[in-house]
Amino acid sequence: MSTPGEFTLSCPMPHASSPVITMAHGGGGTAMHRLIEDVFLRAFDNPLLAQRHDAARIAIDGARIAFTTDSYVVQPLEFPGGDIASLAVHGTVNDLAMAGARPLYLSAGFILEEGLSIELLLRLVASMRRAADACGVQVVTGDTKVIERRGGDGLFINTAGIGVIEHDCVIGPGAVRPGDVVLINGDLGRHGIAIMATREGLEFETAIESDSAPVADAVLALLRGGVEVHCLRDLTRGGLVSAANEIAQAAGVGLHLRETDIPVRDDVRGACELLGFDPLYVANEGRFMAVVAADDAARALDVLRGHPQAPQPAIIGHAHADAPGRVTLESRIGAQRILDMLSGEQLPRIC
Amino acid sequence: MSTPGEFTLSCPMPHASSPVITMAHGGGGTAMHRLIEDVFLRAFDNPLLAQRHDAARIAIDGARIAFTTDSYVVQPLEFPGGDIASLAVHGTVNDLAMAGARPLYLSAGFILEEGLSIELLLRLVASMRRAADACGVQVVTGDTKVIERRGGDGLFINTAGIGVIEHDCVIGPGAVRPGDVVLINGDLGRHGIAIMATREGLEFETAIESDSAPVADAVLALLRGGVEVHCLRDLTRGGLVSAANEIAQAAGVGLHLRETDIPVRDDVRGACELLGFDPLYVANEGRFMAVVAADDAARALDVLRGHPQAPQPAIIGHAHADAPGRVTLESRIGAQRILDMLSGEQLPRIC
Repeated sequence: MSTPGEFTLSCPMPHASSPVITMAHGGGGTAMHRLIEDVFLRAFDNPLLAQRHDAARIAIDGARIAFTTDSYVVQPLEFPGGDIASLAVHGTVNDLAMAGARPLYLSAGFILEEGLSIELLLRLVASMRRAADACGVQVVTGDTKVIERRGGDGLFINTAGIGVIEHDCVIGPGAVRPGDVVLINGDLGRHGIAIMATREGLEFETAIESDSAPVADAVLALLRGGVEVHCLRDLTRGGLVSAANEIAQAAGVGLHLRETDIPVRDDVRGACELLGFDPLYVANEGRFMAVVAADDAARALDVLRGHPQAPQPAIIGHAHADAPGRVTLESRIGAQRILDMLSGEQLPRIC
Repeated sequence: MSTPGEFTLSCPMPHASSPVITMAHGGGGTAMHRLIEDVFLRAFDNPLLAQRHDAARIAIDGARIAFTTDSYVVQPLEFPGGDIASLAVHGTVNDLAMAGARPLYLSAGFILEEGLSIELLLRLVASMRRAADACGVQVVTGDTKVIERRGGDGLFINTAGIGVIEHDCVIGPGAVRPGDVVLINGDLGRHGIAIMATREGLEFETAIESDSAPVADAVLALLRGGVEVHCLRDLTRGGLVSAANEIAQAAGVGLHLRETDIPVRDDVRGACELLGFDPLYVANEGRFMAVVAADDAARALDVLRGHPQAPQPAIIGHAHADAPGRVTLESRIGAQRILDMLSGEQLPRIC
């Protein structure tokens, strides 16, 4: 029952058949996007949130600021190449970078489970500190809550981040044009596979480590290098395919990618085959895609080559005006296929 | 094993006897403060965090900004007078207010439990929207994660907030002086009792409702009214006593309070007696204490009288130079007692 001026939300039709939250809603796929649209974006329909970027861009007293948040529920808490705490720094730093901001400050909210080892907590907090130092950010405010023992998750972390925007590049799906070139900064699939291998107790000849790392410096190098960056997106839940679909749909363009140009390490590819995953859909935590003006593609590649935050930069495709919202792939043997977003996520609790 | 430049944390002695997190660590009492000091403040020892305020004050491109975060794990999710979502707005808005900032923007991170009713989620999100509108803030960025069914908590929420500082008042424990006057904006104990009564299935003649509400406008009224505000603190976990002890210790002053001047409603007092709680220790979610210059005490009371965010403003005590760090109470019958911070919290999961 609503009175004038009193905001309420009615249950949208698409959820009539799924009246409860499922794991799919957390997967970075269509179920999650529908939930965000139908529940959160409907409720908070302000222009800033409607930008549908990872980070909001706000102006305060003339300062141009980016503001973002992410919660981290990854299991296990420690994995090859990282842990939940450094991930909580990298993920939020990278969301700020996707808005073209220079990350400055983080908040850290800890939800601790009764029974969590304090020694483990100390280890994680020290890891968060090292990651923050390496990213050039400071954790300046925080909170601690405790919940009763349940499920043995140990802890959840939320970080919010503030960054400053120091350029005039208009970055967002709205800036994407047919003809734009798509680049990524490195090989795909490491994070999701590292997590899954740890959970499944799989051992490979060499442990596959998460690529959890900041990408902010690489992004800022592109911007300072004069590259006309139109859109940025990190390749987390749902992998490259999820990010590419988000951009294609929001920008109203088609994105065409070439499989031979998309770097995937042999061991990661082998593990994907073993586990039944497609590396293009697997989560990464140190990878982003950039959609740049065609004229600047070569320069963008130059900037990224040799950059420590770009292990294997590559031009992997382009935007075009056909079939807006669709992502297609030219396979190694020249066949064409559509890369649809999955409804759920292949791997739950990876970030 | 640490290499030069690599930050690690050793387990501090006080935790040798309690190697795991307990519910007490979440209580707002001494156990929580020790955890924050020994784990979090040691790790992130930068000047901003060391201010030990709820919100950090940062400067970006000349803009003076307050930044804070809180996680919300209250059970039940809906209670008389509020719910976890509006609480998540009020709590973070009020932390910004405690830094003397005008709240502007919030982020909202949702951790949803598998099985959570989407209808309930819609209700909570609409409540968050109404609360944000009433507080004059916008939720501009967010995140959604899903965890497997466990314990039936339903969801946890984290909000981070950004506010702007538009005055030159230096607010913090360091500004507190002997002779300063202590005020509060209303009667105590409603929130904790509302939660506990709901959990215990207690029914009173009239339901005791949480005082969950913003206090930012009341604080800004004090500042704009020219009151020399030295320190502010909201009276959440651990109640008035916890906040008073935090200020007394950080400021190095004694605080002396008078029981007859501290408003507590009869029904709340009765419920406290029934449940075995001291209202001075019970959590509030729409109450703050202000420590102001003695000369401005009367003006402060004038400003608050009649203010919608100050149901029962009262001068309740003063700061003095004796026994620094100690909080004392003159009881109704004139006896003196020390109000020590409890080690845990009387009521878990109240915010």
